[in-house]
Amino acid sequence: MEDALALSDAVRGTTSPNPPVGAVILDAHGHRVGAGATQPPPGPHAEVVALREAGRRARGGTAVVTLEPCAHHGRTPPCTRALLDAGVAAVRFAVPDPHPAASGGGEVLRAAGMDVEAGSLADEVAAGPLRAWLHRERTGRPHVTWKYAATLDGRVAAADGTSRWISGPVSRAEVHAIRAAADAVVVGTGTVLADDPWLTVRGDDGALAARQPLRVVVGTRGIPGGARVLDSAAETIVLDSHDPDEVLAVLGDRGVVDVLLEGGPTLAGAFVAGRRVDRLLAYVAPALLGAGAVALGPAGVSTVTEAHRWRVETATMSGEDVRISAVPVTGEGGD
Amino acid sequence: MEDALALSDAVRGTTSPNPPVGAVILDAHGHRVGAGATQPPPGPHAEVVALREAGRRARGGTAVVTLEPCAHHGRTPPCTRALLDAGVAAVRFAVPDPHPAASGGGEVLRAAGMDVEAGSLADEVAAGPLRAWLHRERTGRPHVTWKYAATLDGRVAAADGTSRWISGPVSRAEVHAIRAAADAVVVGTGTVLADDPWLTVRGDDGALAARQPLRVVVGTRGIPGGARVLDSAAETIVLDSHDPDEVLAVLGDRGVVDVLLEGGPTLAGAFVAGRRVDRLLAYVAPALLGAGAVALGPAGVSTVTEAHRWRVETATMSGEDVRISAVPVTGEGGD
Ligand SMILES: NC(=O)c1ccc[n+]([C@@H]2O[C@H](COP(=O)([O-])OP(=O)(O)OC[C@H]3O[C@@H](n4cnc5c(N)ncnc54)[C@H](OP(=O)(O)O)[C@@H]3O)[C@@H](O)[C@H]2O)c1
Ligand SMILES: NC(=O)c1ccc[n+]([C@@H]2O[C@H](COP(=O)([O-])OP(=O)(O)OC[C@H]3O[C@@H](n4cnc5c(N)ncnc54)[C@H](OP(=O)(O)O)[C@@H]3O)[C@@H](O)[C@H]2O)c1
Repeated sequence: MEDALALSDAVRGTTSPNPPVGAVILDAHGHRVGAGATQPPPGPHAEVVALREAGRRARGGTAVVTLEPCAHHGRTPPCTRALLDAGVAAVRFAVPDPHPAASGGGEVLRAAGMDVEAGSLADEVAAGPLRAWLHRERTGRPHVTWKYAATLDGRVAAADGTSRWISGPVSRAEVHAIRAAADAVVVGTGTVLADDPWLTVRGDDGALAARQPLRVVVGTRGIPGGARVLDSAAETIVLDSHDPDEVLAVLGDRGVVDVLLEGGPTLAGAFVAGRRVDRLLAYVAPALLGAGAVALGPAGVSTVTEAHRWRVETATMSGEDVRISAVPVTGEGGD
Repeated sequence: MEDALALSDAVRGTTSPNPPVGAVILDAHGHRVGAGATQPPPGPHAEVVALREAGRRARGGTAVVTLEPCAHHGRTPPCTRALLDAGVAAVRFAVPDPHPAASGGGEVLRAAGMDVEAGSLADEVAAGPLRAWLHRERTGRPHVTWKYAATLDGRVAAADGTSRWISGPVSRAEVHAIRAAADAVVVGTGTVLADDPWLTVRGDDGALAARQPLRVVVGTRGIPGGARVLDSAAETIVLDSHDPDEVLAVLGDRGVVDVLLEGGPTLAGAFVAGRRVDRLLAYVAPALLGAGAVALGPAGVSTVTEAHRWRVETATMSGEDVRISAVPVTGEGGD
């Protein structure tokens, strides 16, 4: 399952609206004879890719998959069919498919006499590669990660507006990798006007990555025609709105599942106030500014008892910075 | 040495201006026959306390001490004399005494034929119980730890000024323990006027601890006669100044070695700008406010390249909060 998880992780950002699934096929002797991951739509699902590689060696073997195989005809024929046709004897999957039409894949296979077991590495998969997709299945909305880089005193820019660089090189490289796995990167017009960012994914050599997330600018002010975000490196949409739900609806309609919110304090405040941040990823740099914009602007809180409360998932070092990942406590955020 | 370190730790906050030292005496067979720690001035040093317990059993034994034994006549006779008189055969100490008059204790003992070794657990002791005292020896100034509790967005109070509670119960209990080990607790008049804090040390049952750090209020505005900080639970001084160095000089003259700065953003900004914060201890609560006072006020920085840079010592959980301990990077702070 570790291998399937890694395969799943590797295709994050390329499969939406389908889930980034990983699959490994073992032959009857337990040797790995096939591996695959969900292909960009309208490509095949992970199981099908892995079965193709395994060919006849799958017969009597085991399929290890990060998500319960689908049992419905969608863009592609059901994976349960492919597994049965290949003569696989056993299926192990991490996370059950919560999708009403697709779920039941495990039951279908069991009914056909297959040995089916669920649950291995379920938490790792659900919190990892399938997190955004599961959230979208549950809530109907894309999953939003709000990422920001701040100083120990919570500043995202100095008094004169400069913000390059607050976090260190390790964190900045990591953010690039996270952006590469997202379907869309969202900022407000304020960030575009202040920083004129590219919002593209580049390799260590500065070369543009083959796949770029959709760039999204939210706000009513126009942005200058020469803004970098309007270059041809990636697609960009400008949404003349102040409503996070409207933004998410437009993105959801475009098949976006995993959103990286990289906006400034104003836009982040609107998303937090609307309980539309599902995960927070803070890069806290060991620096102090004493003045300048603060990470979060007005979020509907006037007294301390009304504070938005979160739960820290992890607090770890990212180079010289402290990386804090947190999720809303129940009743907030996602659902 | 672990035992000596623990003894040393246990008397933090009670020994200033003397260092909180711990000592263990082993007899000639390696059995522990005495233990002690520095007594409040004008009491005896750790070695003397431990030797008294050991009595004649110290003869031919080993003394394990967190700090190099002193060789000079201060308030008490030199510890080297006491060790020689007791017939101890070997001395192990963690940290060399940097004090010009006192150092050389190791040499004195070696010259007298004793087996002397230095360095065991030196880093732990120097960063732990002896940190503030070593800093004072090096710089002539008390050591300042700036402690604050902030939200993920760097707020220390909500828009309406409320700040109880930002951090969780585990962090608050820990801060009480840290306060108990400090010689003085410093705030600005702004904090007194806004929060009317007691700044005392209380046990779990709410009872006042026997020893209380000196309470220090810095600022030119008067504070109301009924302010809690003026109650009889502990001594309080009000310093009509805006100069951190002036504040530290007054405190140093009173024998204060270890200062806990618990002031608001204004006073903290003045100390950071003056490079007079030697350690920062942030309790970052997983909460968002989006408005309200930020942890640090003006600290002499206008653009991001001028940011005060720190180095994270540790980032760990404190209950639900993230505790970050950091020290200034070279050229800043202390020395
Ligand atoms: N360190 C970091 O992680 C980081 C990341 C991003 C930005 N920043 C810094 O943040 C600063 C920019 O801050 P910002 O707050 O102006 O940026 P922003 O949040 O990206 O953009 C603000 C704009 O978003 C629009 N908007 C969308 N929804 C809104 C709502 N519900 N309410 C109000 N406005 C809404 C408004 O545009 P219209 O007025 O056009 O309608 C608003 O002016 C810059 O200094 C930048 O460097 C730092
Ligand atoms: N969460 C936490 O960890 C924490 C801790 C403490 C306070 N707080 C919050 O902080 C807020 C109070 O903030 P604050 O900044 O007013 O408190 P403060 O920093 O404790 O006090 C400010 C006052 O200190 C004096 N001061 C001393 N040196 C100064 C200098 N170099 N420059 C300017 N003033 C100097 C001034 O008093 P004069 O005007 O009298 O001269 C100034 O008004 C409250 O909301 C409180 O709840 C939070």
